[in-house]
Amino acid sequence: MNNYSKAGARPVRAVVVGATGYAGIELVRLLARHPEAELVAAMSSGRDARTLPLAELVPALSGITAVDCAPASAAALAAARPDVVFLATPHEVALDLVPGLLQADVRVIDLSGAFRFPDATVFEQWYQVRHTATAALTSAVYGWPEKNRAAIAGARLVANPGCYATAASTALWPLVRSGVILPSGVICDAKSGASGAGKGLRDDLHFVNLEGNCKAYSVLTHRHTPEIAEQSGLGVAELTFTPHLLPINRGIIATTYVRLAEGMEAHDLTAAYQEAYRDSPFVRLRSARLPEISDVVGTNYCDLGFRINPANRQAIIVSTLDNLLKGAAGQALQNMNCMFGWPEEMALC
Amino acid sequence: MNNYSKAGARPVRAVVVGATGYAGIELVRLLARHPEAELVAAMSSGRDARTLPLAELVPALSGITAVDCAPASAAALAAARPDVVFLATPHEVALDLVPGLLQADVRVIDLSGAFRFPDATVFEQWYQVRHTATAALTSAVYGWPEKNRAAIAGARLVANPGCYATAASTALWPLVRSGVILPSGVICDAKSGASGAGKGLRDDLHFVNLEGNCKAYSVLTHRHTPEIAEQSGLGVAELTFTPHLLPINRGIIATTYVRLAEGMEAHDLTAAYQEAYRDSPFVRLRSARLPEISDVVGTNYCDLGFRINPANRQAIIVSTLDNLLKGAAGQALQNMNCMFGWPEEMALC
Amino acid sequence: MNNYSKAGARPVRAVVVGATGYAGIELVRLLARHPEAELVAAMSSGRDARTLPLAELVPALSGITAVDCAPASAAALAAARPDVVFLATPHEVALDLVPGLLQADVRVIDLSGAFRFPDATVFEQWYQVRHTATAALTSAVYGWPEKNRAAIAGARLVANPGCYATAASTALWPLVRSGVILPSGVICDAKSGASGAGKGLRDDLHFVNLEGNCKAYSVLTHRHTPEIAEQSGLGVAELTFTPHLLPINRGIIATTYVRLAEGMEAHDLTAAYQEAYRDSPFVRLRSARLPEISDVVGTNYCDLGFRINPANRQAIIVSTLDNLLKGAAGQALQNMNCMFGWPEEMALC
Amino acid sequence: MNNYSKAGARPVRAVVVGATGYAGIELVRLLARHPEAELVAAMSSGRDARTLPLAELVPALSGITAVDCAPASAAALAAARPDVVFLATPHEVALDLVPGLLQADVRVIDLSGAFRFPDATVFEQWYQVRHTATAALTSAVYGWPEKNRAAIAGARLVANPGCYATAASTALWPLVRSGVILPSGVICDAKSGASGAGKGLRDDLHFVNLEGNCKAYSVLTHRHTPEIAEQSGLGVAELTFTPHLLPINRGIIATTYVRLAEGMEAHDLTAAYQEAYRDSPFVRLRSARLPEISDVVGTNYCDLGFRINPANRQAIIVSTLDNLLKGAAGQALQNMNCMFGWPEEMALC
Repeated sequence: MNNYSKAGARPVRAVVVGATGYAGIELVRLLARHPEAELVAAMSSGRDARTLPLAELVPALSGITAVDCAPASAAALAAARPDVVFLATPHEVALDLVPGLLQADVRVIDLSGAFRFPDATVFEQWYQVRHTATAALTSAVYGWPEKNRAAIAGARLVANPGCYATAASTALWPLVRSGVILPSGVICDAKSGASGAGKGLRDDLHFVNLEGNCKAYSVLTHRHTPEIAEQSGLGVAELTFTPHLLPINRGIIATTYVRLAEGMEAHDLTAAYQEAYRDSPFVRLRSARLPEISDVVGTNYCDLGFRINPANRQAIIVSTLDNLLKGAAGQALQNMNCMFGWPEEMALC
Repeated sequence: MNNYSKAGARPVRAVVVGATGYAGIELVRLLARHPEAELVAAMSSGRDARTLPLAELVPALSGITAVDCAPASAAALAAARPDVVFLATPHEVALDLVPGLLQADVRVIDLSGAFRFPDATVFEQWYQVRHTATAALTSAVYGWPEKNRAAIAGARLVANPGCYATAASTALWPLVRSGVILPSGVICDAKSGASGAGKGLRDDLHFVNLEGNCKAYSVLTHRHTPEIAEQSGLGVAELTFTPHLLPINRGIIATTYVRLAEGMEAHDLTAAYQEAYRDSPFVRLRSARLPEISDVVGTNYCDLGFRINPANRQAIIVSTLDNLLKGAAGQALQNMNCMFGWPEEMALC
Repeated sequence: MNNYSKAGARPVRAVVVGATGYAGIELVRLLARHPEAELVAAMSSGRDARTLPLAELVPALSGITAVDCAPASAAALAAARPDVVFLATPHEVALDLVPGLLQADVRVIDLSGAFRFPDATVFEQWYQVRHTATAALTSAVYGWPEKNRAAIAGARLVANPGCYATAASTALWPLVRSGVILPSGVICDAKSGASGAGKGLRDDLHFVNLEGNCKAYSVLTHRHTPEIAEQSGLGVAELTFTPHLLPINRGIIATTYVRLAEGMEAHDLTAAYQEAYRDSPFVRLRSARLPEISDVVGTNYCDLGFRINPANRQAIIVSTLDNLLKGAAGQALQNMNCMFGWPEEMALC
Repeated sequence: MNNYSKAGARPVRAVVVGATGYAGIELVRLLARHPEAELVAAMSSGRDARTLPLAELVPALSGITAVDCAPASAAALAAARPDVVFLATPHEVALDLVPGLLQADVRVIDLSGAFRFPDATVFEQWYQVRHTATAALTSAVYGWPEKNRAAIAGARLVANPGCYATAASTALWPLVRSGVILPSGVICDAKSGASGAGKGLRDDLHFVNLEGNCKAYSVLTHRHTPEIAEQSGLGVAELTFTPHLLPINRGIIATTYVRLAEGMEAHDLTAAYQEAYRDSPFVRLRSARLPEISDVVGTNYCDLGFRINPANRQAIIVSTLDNLLKGAAGQALQNMNCMFGWPEEMALC
């Protein structure tokens, strides 16, 4: 299909596992426009999957890709001879597939939560899933290019961050590490569109039940809590993270409340952000107007802005991103670009 | 709870079967405000239902009703000693329960499709369900007060109309019976909110799949087609009915295309409508501005308006209603009001 | 029109000023069903208003009311001989009209912000409007029946609370007054539907700009901040209030973060709420499931629920209401019911 | 910004006039990814416009483009030395600017309605605007590549089609020209998202008024009616076109009702479509499942599908597209690709 701009060299062979899920579909779209990589196979992680053209399973992809979608298996992966595999699957499927892929010297970008924590017990406690691939943890790099660009470039296994985690950590990490804020009593009130919850049918995702509605969910138990704490440099007890479900398809807005450290002012926050994201084309620091979800939907940006209450020295930080792009597939492609030495923005603008 | 306005006389005892469905919930709300009727029991038609306070199953009803919701059964119905039973259930459940209720001399208002057609074979053909209560058909009255007010007053079994059927027949019936339009080549392009499809989980009702979307469905096969044709006085081959799903919760807008009969003009349509709906407080004929869905949501009105193309003598008629009220529970309450001799608007304004 | 249930006695004569605004329209609907009060006139506060049937200006009200809507003026108000006047107008209009109404011994329920603060300078500072009716402030009672039921019963001028203020104060007031929480560092992250912003056209309320979007606004400057602080018993510097705009029409969800006082536990919060709202039919304390916006839309309820983080002794309180009902017109009707000695729930269930 | 993939040759210099409107913003995004063209200037057609970075006026474009947005004028256009100018402006602005651009030998792609009709009186009648550039009409080519690919390649002035017109004509043109359907009594019931109405504030585009709503508008008077008729080969009296407003941002679904000519069957429709769109990568003929809006949003596709009623030989054709892409900016870019000899899909997949 769209190959007018593929470069002369042999394109990198990419496989997407979980290609019929929301993040998987975005990966397919992004790869279709990528000048250096080519989607050579798609796989589904569901049990009863048959092999069918992906565009038959996802009519919106008709004309965009001609690949078949087969049930995921080690054999099918080997047959595809991939250079890189994206896993947009349940944690359990990632735990199953990753060791074999690493052994076969295939680069892996895993969008599940399975390899985000160096300490497997944190994963097991918050995800209630046993970690069956702990050996692979030592080769995993947390795939947040804004923080780990260099390590990602050399990584074999990249653990792509959670959507909320990217939004919240983008706001918090520069401030905690620079000592601009007190590392305690942090509150992150986040709101997300429904695609973050995946395509599985659920009562609270039934159209009539979500349209016109908004609710808090997973209060005090959401799995991204320890990820945000760890990436931001906070103790998990110092962070209260409350996600809400919005009646929209895509996008996250995180409103984070922190207390300034002694002597710190607005310009110190600005400086901390500028220092942290100087080389990061996908973080936009806003001043005139706080970020909104619609500024970032359809893009790989994470927007940031803040206000300070002089009466009580609290800062209110707002960060927004598209949960399927910077919060999932876009960040995964950005990680691929880092891993293969291509410009970070390739196919993402 | 709300009983400050109940009249002195013994209130009519009402039971709602299917009380946790969208139409059932509306019936419970409407009965809670009705000054002459009282909800004495609620039942669920699902198989695994246990007996629980209805407000526990439907949190929004907390404070509005204290009744329990039990599994529907003939025994439970008998124990409730109802004067009137509303069936907001699948067709099969209605077919099961109606004969016993009639025998027990209980009035029944059935919101399913089971008793809308005098001829059981029409039901069987379009609904693909065997009609197991044909004897009851002779006592059934089609519960459209605007057309059948008098017959409903004396009925034991009222077949509450379909939501699309009410919207489309309100537009068509006065024009067909008065000969203002040609009774052929009629096209009804209708659009409905998602609550009309019920609370059962389905891929196309998953929030992400419907938000921002609109699609035609059940093209040429929708079950309301023969109902509209019969109630409007059209042959079924003279009607093309195309429903669409809208990304909203409640409301139907039907755009109906007809050809004027020889010599007929705008004032003839107006006259036909005024004649038909003179005594009908819930039909509002609009002239200055065509009806919109938001005019009627939350009300029992069906709004009507039209425009005529002088170039080709086509009329475009727009009708709107709230599918859960005038299209289901509101019309059912209106039918109850007719059956018990109360003002038609009671508890509906 | 719906007058079958009006009681025998002369109905109370009610006037709505601002009848074409969102809160005004709700007032008209509620009064149409009220058995003891009658809407005798409607007025608009806009400058160029002409006298027209209200139902012509607001097509959805056709059939519900036959009153005319005239430009608001002292003369028109006098001519209507009202017992009670609802002001759903800009603050400036309320400041203009209230003194004359009080002098004429008419009861007033003011939905603007003009009489919510005993201290006019607080109003002037946060609303940037000069208070030109300070003499009337002494007769004003803050119209929150859950807190001020008795005072409202004897009031001539009731200042109907702000929508956010009702949601947040319902969560905070019982806890602050009972010493269950620390009265400092309180964060209220609130989200509201667009009807709260009124019908004035604005870029951020243009459909395309709000659909699929969510944004924080009026950060640190929202006018309900001092109202929440005052009604909850907090210093204004102890409260950070951040409103967000949701892509829905109606409803508020407020997520409030507080710290427990020494020795306090979940059952102390429950006890404080039960004590405060024992006689309040419109506050529903939830335990099994946190409140959601769709539980309360179309009702006069304010739902409440909370969770406690044992790791850091923070409580997360969620409260929801319909901003046009419990947050505006419903609460105003509830206030009228209190003022005239009728059951608080009359016409509100 | 994103120029890693710009080809070696001097890029084509493009200017967008009306860059802050919805179609203009999409053009800017598309040009940012185009490997052969470069956005060298942006202009606004509003009167009071000042020169500011475009990304300041449209925060979502920050990082995507660094161009300034200046008030549109002949002088500013000349200074930009464009090879091609996109006019996403009111008709009047296009009428003003086109003659000068043609004289300066600049290629023009006009998204307004000004040059879509060879006969200026048709424009004047339906648009109620005087045509002040009739001389330019002779050089105008209707910019529908699926029909006029060859003529567009040589054109200096391309009149980009209307959004509804593209959806409806894609369904009708192949059938009319091949005689598969009767060229009379055609009904097109179309539904569009709100972005089609532009960013001007209007009561019916106020969020509260459109959310949860759907309405017919411009019944019998919509400007795309003569365009559809002309492009499809129908007399204007043979087409009834009824647009509806949907509570979504982007997308059109057109449901078109036609009568089959004697002896024609489903395979004749299929053949007519395949013949017409054999070389058209952006038309997707669906069979298994009728097109839905969400299949095409964010893409340049127009999807097509149909069903035939054997009882009355009517065909129901459903076509969908994204009104800002295939219905505006995407089609404009496709036209640019044709004009400059690049692959039609360039930057559009």
